[in-house]
Amino acid sequence: MAKFKELPENTLHRLVIYLNVLDALEKKKIESISSDDLAKRCGVNSAQLRKDLSFVGNLGTKGVGYSVKSLKYNLKKFLGRTQEWNLILGGISPVGEFLLHSKDLQREGFYFMAAFETRPEEIGKIINGVSVYNLDQLGYVTKAIKVDMGVITSEDKPEIFLETFLQHGLKAILNLSPTPFYTDNPDIKIENFTFSMALTKLSFFLKGSS
Amino acid sequence: MAKFKELPENTLHRLVIYLNVLDALEKKKIESISSDDLAKRCGVNSAQLRKDLSFVGNLGTKGVGYSVKSLKYNLKKFLGRTQEWNLILGGISPVGEFLLHSKDLQREGFYFMAAFETRPEEIGKIINGVSVYNLDQLGYVTKAIKVDMGVITSEDKPEIFLETFLQHGLKAILNLSPTPFYTDNPDIKIENFTFSMALTKLSFFLKGSS
Repeated sequence: MAKFKELPENTLHRLVIYLNVLDALEKKKIESISSDDLAKRCGVNSAQLRKDLSFVGNLGTKGVGYSVKSLKYNLKKFLGRTQEWNLILGGISPVGEFLLHSKDLQREGFYFMAAFETRPEEIGKIINGVSVYNLDQLGYVTKAIKVDMGVITSEDKPEIFLETFLQHGLKAILNLSPTPFYTDNPDIKIENFTFSMALTKLSFFLKGSS
Repeated sequence: MAKFKELPENTLHRLVIYLNVLDALEKKKIESISSDDLAKRCGVNSAQLRKDLSFVGNLGTKGVGYSVKSLKYNLKKFLGRTQEWNLILGGISPVGEFLLHSKDLQREGFYFMAAFETRPEEIGKIINGVSVYNLDQLGYVTKAIKVDMGVITSEDKPEIFLETFLQHGLKAILNLSPTPFYTDNPDIKIENFTFSMALTKLSFFLKGSS
């Protein structure tokens, strides 16, 4: 499916933003929106918006603008968000525990099926209904249930979780550990995020503008 | 300080990643690294790495590579991370409570000084030593203490916190609410993030590759 892989990363980033803005508009019972107004709310110009949305195949109706509901649905479908995804967690840490308790992620269709640890004192715990297994047991779990994405929240040994997740065939990783990871394997995708990374972009901005 | 503002957003994103990778290397007691090796760990090629680092002014020594410690220090300084930053929180929610308890952010030099709410039942609480004030009181707080960044974690009315924060002169906002916000004011910077946005990039990838 080369078509999808060729979508530039920045375009993908913007499409995800459009989806969130449309979601907020729908919650406010707004039924239609002009491309100028939608673009403004998304921080882009309307030419950029229309170009990005041409990937999705929804171009709106001239003079009427976009139907919020149908554009949101088409975007959701394009982004793989009309289906549910099964997640596993690697490493019990404060952010890991937070995610296991998150109702937002479940509401959005992301379900944690199991958590994994290497530290004996954590193994066997049940956190908000999710069992913490020994990382050695990952093979049994991936045989028993479909696992789509791995979320790495280990603070001290994130690389062990990454290696083991990839060995067992996971192809999509959200890495929330302090160490960013990369792969040159085009069949694997790793997203890296920490709150401190996001705040560093702000600290650079403030330092430069003061 | 136009020089800083002209740094492309993607370059900034990569510099933040380099800093995190160097931090992980330092923790592993690695003292020096070649640009090829560093580039690989950061998911870029070494020409890109050298180009990005030329903004920082640290070009390494030919044949020796980079000193991890000194490159990390120079990057930290360039990114405004050698100083401490005062944060306020807007809206008590699960992610807000998580951040108020985060030891990682304090360790990185980001300190929550106060939290704000509009819901009476939340006002007056003290969460991990941080007081929750009525949003109406923001002016008193910004007069009493230096506030650098606002972190919006309100789930239901994030726009009220954004407006009030900007009215009181905040210029750097991390928005973790479900609704992304933008501004065309070059003196203000807003970073938007939710876990669901990060997972959507993975769902798109999996949908396209299956």
